Amino acid sequence: MTNTLLILPGDGIGPEVMAEVSRIIDWFGDKRGLKFDVSEDLVGGAAYDVHGVPLADATMARAQEVDAVLLGAVGGPKYDNLDFSVKPERGLLRLRKEMDLFANLRPAQCFDALADFSSLKRDVVAGLDIMIVRELTSGIYFGEPRGIFEENGERVGINTQRYTESEIDRVARSAFELARKRGNKVCSMEKANVMESGILWREVVQRVHDADYPDVELSHMYADAGGMQLCRWPKQFDVIVTDNLFGDLLSDVAAMLTGSLGMLPSASLGAPMANGRPKALYEPVHGSAPDIAGQGKANPIACILSFAMALRYSFDQGEEATRLEQAVEKVLADGVRTADLMQSEGTTPASTAQMGDAILAA
Amino acid sequence: MTNTLLILPGDGIGPEVMAEVSRIIDWFGDKRGLKFDVSEDLVGGAAYDVHGVPLADATMARAQEVDAVLLGAVGGPKYDNLDFSVKPERGLLRLRKEMDLFANLRPAQCFDALADFSSLKRDVVAGLDIMIVRELTSGIYFGEPRGIFEENGERVGINTQRYTESEIDRVARSAFELARKRGNKVCSMEKANVMESGILWREVVQRVHDADYPDVELSHMYADAGGMQLCRWPKQFDVIVTDNLFGDLLSDVAAMLTGSLGMLPSASLGAPMANGRPKALYEPVHGSAPDIAGQGKANPIACILSFAMALRYSFDQGEEATRLEQAVEKVLADGVRTADLMQSEGTTPASTAQMGDAILAA
Ligand SMILES: CC(C)[C@H](C(=O)O)[C@@H](O)C(=O)O
Ligand SMILES: CC(C)[C@H](C(=O)O)[C@@H](O)C(=O)O
Repeated sequence: MTNTLLILPGDGIGPEVMAEVSRIIDWFGDKRGLKFDVSEDLVGGAAYDVHGVPLADATMARAQEVDAVLLGAVGGPKYDNLDFSVKPERGLLRLRKEMDLFANLRPAQCFDALADFSSLKRDVVAGLDIMIVRELTSGIYFGEPRGIFEENGERVGINTQRYTESEIDRVARSAFELARKRGNKVCSMEKANVMESGILWREVVQRVHDADYPDVELSHMYADAGGMQLCRWPKQFDVIVTDNLFGDLLSDVAAMLTGSLGMLPSASLGAPMANGRPKALYEPVHGSAPDIAGQGKANPIACILSFAMALRYSFDQGEEATRLEQAVEKVLADGVRTADLMQSEGTTPASTAQMGDAILAA
Repeated sequence: MTNTLLILPGDGIGPEVMAEVSRIIDWFGDKRGLKFDVSEDLVGGAAYDVHGVPLADATMARAQEVDAVLLGAVGGPKYDNLDFSVKPERGLLRLRKEMDLFANLRPAQCFDALADFSSLKRDVVAGLDIMIVRELTSGIYFGEPRGIFEENGERVGINTQRYTESEIDRVARSAFELARKRGNKVCSMEKANVMESGILWREVVQRVHDADYPDVELSHMYADAGGMQLCRWPKQFDVIVTDNLFGDLLSDVAAMLTGSLGMLPSASLGAPMANGRPKALYEPVHGSAPDIAGQGKANPIACILSFAMALRYSFDQGEEATRLEQAVEKVLADGVRTADLMQSEGTTPASTAQMGDAILAA
């Protein structure tokens, strides 16, 4: 079986962190006999600059064919005033939607060597390892009607939250499956006290649980309380499953808690393709960080760990993924630090490429 | 001018924390000649038990007439399986909507005596004093269509986010006015990169600023990044203005950060009435805490500080409000602690009523 990869570096620091991933991909080919057939293309502002759209149709078609898409980051101030329909983000959202990547896996993990870097107290975050499963193809991100309309002599901005039973069902299953391989606990978050879509969400998650995953411990929490509890004592959670918009906020909060924002990967998975592999896109949780782009300051670890997730979830190479993750941990334990990470006695400042070097060496 | 108050203790710990507020109200009448004409009624589950609805029409009518409503808390497991339309929360939401309380002021303040109690590091939160202005009468909480419908053989849960220009305009003005009395800085949060309602939000806030508040420093942030920044370095903010749903989440996160959840009040303000006072409802940020209800363990401070906000915003008694707030600070500095607060050497455990005693004495 060939292993096909589409690399979309995107904007801002995307290209420079992705360059380090490319070196790692080559290393696996050279040293581990794990060959990838890699193509590269544009997304976001970079695509807009060339094609006038944030994702060309040919790129979209290619993304549908490959085993995995690796994406860097999209967006930047240069594109802030573009029309909504061609903003860099639309390229990413189109990929998610048309590939039907409904399950967004966002691990929030606190790297031991970085626990003191969090704004939270060490004992609150040290050893933290939770997984947020965010629904990624529906909800208020995609619901119709949407837009800005004229009504009674003024404009009104409208977006629609919509969830069907089957959309909730499938992402709940992803969460329960994952939980079984981890702490066997799922907490589902919505606002069922205020939103009917939350009522349906809660009901379907409970039904999927009772029918097929009674062995997994399930709890429900209102999303506002969930945000609070993430800040108070995040270790109470194992897997959190939530909708697209709550997942956007809560996963960012969780990521920040760990103090490891530049370190966190994500996987967005869809249904299995003909070859049995799921449709998949991997991207760091961090954004395009235009303020430091092009200066060799960016931390490539989140993007590298996203490739590790690709090894695990797309290519069934769990052991190689662990190998890569361990190399990252070793480098951190050795004190190698890009500019976003805390320097202290005994640590060594590193550029983006030097971090790549260190991980390759490890 | 008479000062009229409607007290709605509600459910769970609501009645016991409100009992302490009643003593404080009496104290202001006796010692400061500040008399209040107080009536009391039911809301939430307590109203449902008697009337079969979480807010009786007569109570609603009374709330429209008084200068200020003080509310304890609503909800509890006993009511979890009620139909959506009669859930305890609907009583609160009806008050907010029919009184048109569009500006929800949620101070997130870290009390110095409690700074070590936060899950965040002391230097991140000590001295923190931000104000979240949450739009409270529109957005996805109230937009139509909403409900659970049958479509293509399955159910779909729908809610609608809707914001008109005038709804955004008025809450933006509240935020800018408040900022002028504080740090003169407003950060507006939405998801304009994903939601058209967020685009309109950003545009209107900017327009109100440019036209009438150019002296106030204004910035915009995506709500997910806002959640992150609240966790990373909350002191960068002064006033945050955001919509109903983002405000729900972000204010809870902010409240938790301070380590002072049982301490935080809120004010919900509407348009001026005939007597010049705004329609107003005051309530603690914490919930009904059914697990500790009726045990004398609850912290009455959030509810007492909500009354201080009433003194300030409804009765133009800013000095008396400060007097009350200073009494609370003194009691905390003296080490009086309800069960929710951290005990340490030199602190004195206190019941709900003992905390009330101490504040009255101070
Ligand atoms: C860039 C943006 C469209 C995106 C989102 O809102 O989903 C980002 O915040 C994320 O979380 O992946
Ligand atoms: C009780 C509930 C309806 C309410 C809300 O969602 O607004 C609460 O969470 C709040 O923040 O006041």
